[in-house]
Amino acid sequence: MGQYRKHVFVCTTGATCPTQADTEGFVKTMRAAIAKAGLHEEIRINKSGCFSQCGNGPMVVVYPEDVWYAAVRAEDLEEIVRSHLLGGHPVERLLYRPGKPGPNVLAKKDRR
Amino acid sequence: MGQYRKHVFVCTTGATCPTQADTEGFVKTMRAAIAKAGLHEEIRINKSGCFSQCGNGPMVVVYPEDVWYAAVRAEDLEEIVRSHLLGGHPVERLLYRPGKPGPNVLAKKDRR
Repeated sequence: MGQYRKHVFVCTTGATCPTQADTEGFVKTMRAAIAKAGLHEEIRINKSGCFSQCGNGPMVVVYPEDVWYAAVRAEDLEEIVRSHLLGGHPVERLLYRPGKPGPNVLAKKDRR
Repeated sequence: MGQYRKHVFVCTTGATCPTQADTEGFVKTMRAAIAKAGLHEEIRINKSGCFSQCGNGPMVVVYPEDVWYAAVRAEDLEEIVRSHLLGGHPVERLLYRPGKPGPNVLAKKDRR
């Protein structure tokens, strides 16, 4: 048995995600929203290192359900929290669908 | 669909785990073992922030299966890699069983 119903990992210390957005700020924003909902004992938001998907981020991963989000912006966080973390419905438009498992580091020329 | 068959998170930047052992070294050791086994595309080892289990660590968590290890020592890593990550059999003697979900921060007087 795990400790959390949902355990969210945000890439904050990889080489790329933190250059694309204030991902440390993502953690603060989501933690505050979860605390406000009174669910900090069931839902944990964590900082994480690189997931080897560089160029596709900022990356946010929700375990144990194994839902991956890519290219997350600060303005998406409210929907991720409301729809997915609190409501149980992943945000389809933000789902990461690279078409293959494993590492998936984009060449610099292919990055947005 | 997630990116990794096993995604391992080691607390390296919490306030307590890194004081109990060289948990950055845990990441290096496990990554090297996974690379040697040729499985770095299927098994990812990540650094992580605090899981709010302070005093029970060093903590190592394996998702998506949601297997938690506590009080991990450097000399346990070979068995975790061989038995669990490569062999599929979690190491029973190291499993974290606090008896309750959620945060579980030990008072300083109760820590080993």
